[in-house]
Amino acid sequence: MNTRLAALREAMTAHQIDAYIIPNTDAHQSEYIAEHYQSMTWLSGFTGSNGTIVVTQDFAGLWTDGRYYLQATQQLEGSGIKMMKLEVQINPEYLLWIADNLSENATVAMDGRLFSVTKYNNMQRLFSKKALQIKTDIDLIEAIWTDRPAVPATDVFEHEVKYAGKTRQEKIAAIREKMTEKEAQNYLITALDEVCWLLNIRGRDVDFNPVTYSFVVVNMQATHLFIDKNKLSAELRTTLKADGVQLHDYNAIANELGKLAGTNIFISASQTSIYLKNALPETCTIKTGASIAEYLKAIKNETEQEWLRQVMVKDGVAMVRFLKWIEDNIGKTKITELSASDKLHELRAAGDLFFGDSFPAISGYKGNGAIIHYRVTPESDTELHPNGIYLIDSGGQYLDGTTDITRTLTLGEPTEEQRKIYTLVLKGHIGLAMLKFPEGTRGMLLDVMARQPLWQHGLNYRHGTGHGVGYFMNVHEGPQRIGPGMGGGYKVGMAAGMYSSNEPGFYKEGEFGMRIENLIIAQKAEKTDYGQFLYFETITLCPLENKLVDVSLLTSAERDWYNAYHQEVFEKLAPKLAANEAEWLKGKCAAI
Amino acid sequence: MNTRLAALREAMTAHQIDAYIIPNTDAHQSEYIAEHYQSMTWLSGFTGSNGTIVVTQDFAGLWTDGRYYLQATQQLEGSGIKMMKLEVQINPEYLLWIADNLSENATVAMDGRLFSVTKYNNMQRLFSKKALQIKTDIDLIEAIWTDRPAVPATDVFEHEVKYAGKTRQEKIAAIREKMTEKEAQNYLITALDEVCWLLNIRGRDVDFNPVTYSFVVVNMQATHLFIDKNKLSAELRTTLKADGVQLHDYNAIANELGKLAGTNIFISASQTSIYLKNALPETCTIKTGASIAEYLKAIKNETEQEWLRQVMVKDGVAMVRFLKWIEDNIGKTKITELSASDKLHELRAAGDLFFGDSFPAISGYKGNGAIIHYRVTPESDTELHPNGIYLIDSGGQYLDGTTDITRTLTLGEPTEEQRKIYTLVLKGHIGLAMLKFPEGTRGMLLDVMARQPLWQHGLNYRHGTGHGVGYFMNVHEGPQRIGPGMGGGYKVGMAAGMYSSNEPGFYKEGEFGMRIENLIIAQKAEKTDYGQFLYFETITLCPLENKLVDVSLLTSAERDWYNAYHQEVFEKLAPKLAANEAEWLKGKCAAI
Repeated sequence: MNTRLAALREAMTAHQIDAYIIPNTDAHQSEYIAEHYQSMTWLSGFTGSNGTIVVTQDFAGLWTDGRYYLQATQQLEGSGIKMMKLEVQINPEYLLWIADNLSENATVAMDGRLFSVTKYNNMQRLFSKKALQIKTDIDLIEAIWTDRPAVPATDVFEHEVKYAGKTRQEKIAAIREKMTEKEAQNYLITALDEVCWLLNIRGRDVDFNPVTYSFVVVNMQATHLFIDKNKLSAELRTTLKADGVQLHDYNAIANELGKLAGTNIFISASQTSIYLKNALPETCTIKTGASIAEYLKAIKNETEQEWLRQVMVKDGVAMVRFLKWIEDNIGKTKITELSASDKLHELRAAGDLFFGDSFPAISGYKGNGAIIHYRVTPESDTELHPNGIYLIDSGGQYLDGTTDITRTLTLGEPTEEQRKIYTLVLKGHIGLAMLKFPEGTRGMLLDVMARQPLWQHGLNYRHGTGHGVGYFMNVHEGPQRIGPGMGGGYKVGMAAGMYSSNEPGFYKEGEFGMRIENLIIAQKAEKTDYGQFLYFETITLCPLENKLVDVSLLTSAERDWYNAYHQEVFEKLAPKLAANEAEWLKGKCAAI
Repeated sequence: MNTRLAALREAMTAHQIDAYIIPNTDAHQSEYIAEHYQSMTWLSGFTGSNGTIVVTQDFAGLWTDGRYYLQATQQLEGSGIKMMKLEVQINPEYLLWIADNLSENATVAMDGRLFSVTKYNNMQRLFSKKALQIKTDIDLIEAIWTDRPAVPATDVFEHEVKYAGKTRQEKIAAIREKMTEKEAQNYLITALDEVCWLLNIRGRDVDFNPVTYSFVVVNMQATHLFIDKNKLSAELRTTLKADGVQLHDYNAIANELGKLAGTNIFISASQTSIYLKNALPETCTIKTGASIAEYLKAIKNETEQEWLRQVMVKDGVAMVRFLKWIEDNIGKTKITELSASDKLHELRAAGDLFFGDSFPAISGYKGNGAIIHYRVTPESDTELHPNGIYLIDSGGQYLDGTTDITRTLTLGEPTEEQRKIYTLVLKGHIGLAMLKFPEGTRGMLLDVMARQPLWQHGLNYRHGTGHGVGYFMNVHEGPQRIGPGMGGGYKVGMAAGMYSSNEPGFYKEGEFGMRIENLIIAQKAEKTDYGQFLYFETITLCPLENKLVDVSLLTSAERDWYNAYHQEVFEKLAPKLAANEAEWLKGKCAAI
């Protein structure tokens, strides 16, 4: 019996709540969250990254997506919580379930800090048809999770301007310029990566993302930072103050927002919680739009770009050593998915200014590689043998940049099918890498370049082609995305300085997964009568898998790109490698 | 002095109207309109296809787009109406002008039959900020245009089912099935091509489009056709009646809609006029969405497809004779843009079941070809010489189908630049023609395939890549469109049976225009784990211009497509040609 669930139901009765919703996010709508916020896992035992629990007195369900159907079914066994399939993101099934199963005028409750204004508005539209009452001011978990870990409070440190390229004053001035355009008096920033980018600070509150729990409100007079002050050294406090940043307690945010009567405030409705919106006084006019900070952060400045190019050299050196280590040891020493990703971590960690991995590596051998978001566990860990396909998707956080790279290796002689498919994925990768396009072209329009070689053979991949990447910051960031969807990110026009991934793939269930991922920076090409054109500068440096390329399927332009890329990889990495490593790399980079 | 404008202002004073808006459309929101509706031209003298006039007591302006700035400036001279630049389609500048220049509570009026519900709603949103009053029930033109031509009343004829492929009862049943899905009791069809498609009737009320002024309301009991009954033969009336079609007077539509109290009705908000919407009683629930008939009409049935393939043979024969005629006569007999398009009309008219041109041919020599919507007039008519580039975009209406084709010829030795650009346009054309893609892929995602070869050279074209084409019906139809825009048509997923154009181009101002246009039908390819795939069957048959192709710029796959296309053109057209014509065509279709 699930005593936690029983305690929740008791609390629901006490508060006259008919249904309680528990999402898997934090008060900043983050992708990666601290343990404090992992109520979903605490209540259910399910450890996947996507899950929403709905509890009533006679039902409890956890909705998760296709990646996790099997895992959730196993982990929920005996929890009293049923695995439910989540297939739609807008008007997700758990909301429909609530609308279908509750009686008129029933009360649905949730912790409003965990739901964005956008999500709340959708919910309200749906629930109003059945006159359901929505309460957003109740955190029932806090009282029943007696040993709940606190919100983390790791030390915050300055991200030096020699890496950041711009001072916090310069960034704040840029924000104020946009605020003036929008006639905004206040601007609330709730996304952790945006706060940290703006103030050139970093922390370790969350795994993989170098962020610190905090909020910011910018107005024309000052920048208000809401944060646990104990995280800041006296020196950093002084520096921030000198730069016009006023400190407030993390929990004071709602109270301070409550003082904005008679003014206006700009917020991003998809990022700001309904709790914070409700904290604003009635006479405060709310202006909504896409986050200002997110867009400015996405355009990497010249200094950031220059460091990124150098980061790619050390990350490439680690990757080359890793690939050579696999080749030298496969079939001789025992290598597993887990020991391989540990080895890669160790090689990266030897690099200058290494801070940590940028996400949990996807290290997938054979059929495991076909699980798109595979995260190897001690239970699933599989030994690598000198045959079959191995996929490794990993990245590092360095003080001077963030990386994300996928390589696909054949550990033995590949089949014809494997060579064909790798080559089609490669053609897609090159199609995007070689493209020139008008500034402002939306990511949804670029996607087909990476996908069509697979389409020609009736194949496809069920994920996007590219996401934005942070600079010593979250490996996934907005606003731009490259993919066929109609969501907001795909509508963002590509601009010079945007840093993204280029990662088409193909997955054959139970057999293998293939993906080729390099990072790219949009750069200005020529300006003509038809406007400013952009191209993608590929900055990731690591050889591709010659043994998987069927040259007969490449056009001469594709072959030229491939050989030039290998030439560049060799020239930039060889000077940093030992002689035998450089010799090995030379072979890997031989022209095809 | 413009006495018409003076009369309009007098009428405005009498009705206490501060601003009057005159668009260039009809009561069905048509692209091509009968003279009765050409108030814009009557008042201003401007003959372009896009123009909206706004008149106040001390100002009169005509807003038109970039294609017509020069023409409008010339034609408006002395009219008392100023040429104004229209650059935006949503919230167009004339609405902004009104909002900026009228005082609060002023009255703006228009003939509500000429404005869609969507346009009216936009207008209302904008004008409400200034508390402007909007009157939509006033046609001031009717009283002052004393010799105004009547709404045309040409004979209506049956489009035989052997051409249409489906009976009107089958089509009505398909409509009712969709109505049932939408729980719609009534469905109002206002678009002329949709009415004619549904009932397998055609007329000659409008140039180029074989339509008849009419409305339809479908419910579960009957199909109500609103039309001038004099247009129908006794036989056709009997046939329609037998098929459950009840006849009403054309002008009875508003009155009949007024009887729908207590029911619901489905309408397309972008097609239905605000006048008809206002005719619905308050207790009639309005459901809006994309037109049902438009979508069903877009999917050509097997019979239609088979006739279209045959139509392409006779249209191709006319085109081949035309191309040969140019080549044989250029530099020997005088040929002008106008005499050339007249010749082409004559050659098409000799074909079986010819009904008329499907639009005014664009016959543009040298710099005239760079004017994207060029319409040759006796004033602009230019003589062709044995040098330079000539563009001809034309099409025919046949009882068994509609065509639309563009070819670009070099009348002398082309320059290197001309060969390069033609080849880039060709690569784009082939890129779309060879593409395989998942069913339901939106037109906006397909567009890049046709555009990217030009992008690679910093070039582009400022029009879409493809539009839907009717079947013995309007040469432009929806819902699908292929292009980079975000408008509704570009969001429509491609479905098997959709008939569209594939027409990338390039235009060098003052020098030449190039475009390659074939018509394509989306067809089913294989069904795989990734869903149903589609490809485009190219059905237009006419040689391309070998002299303008730089083979070194083609991939081997593109070259194979090109040669296979020419092979098919030759094989299908040669049997219908005289021996010397076939011999000539053989040379044109020689492999490169």
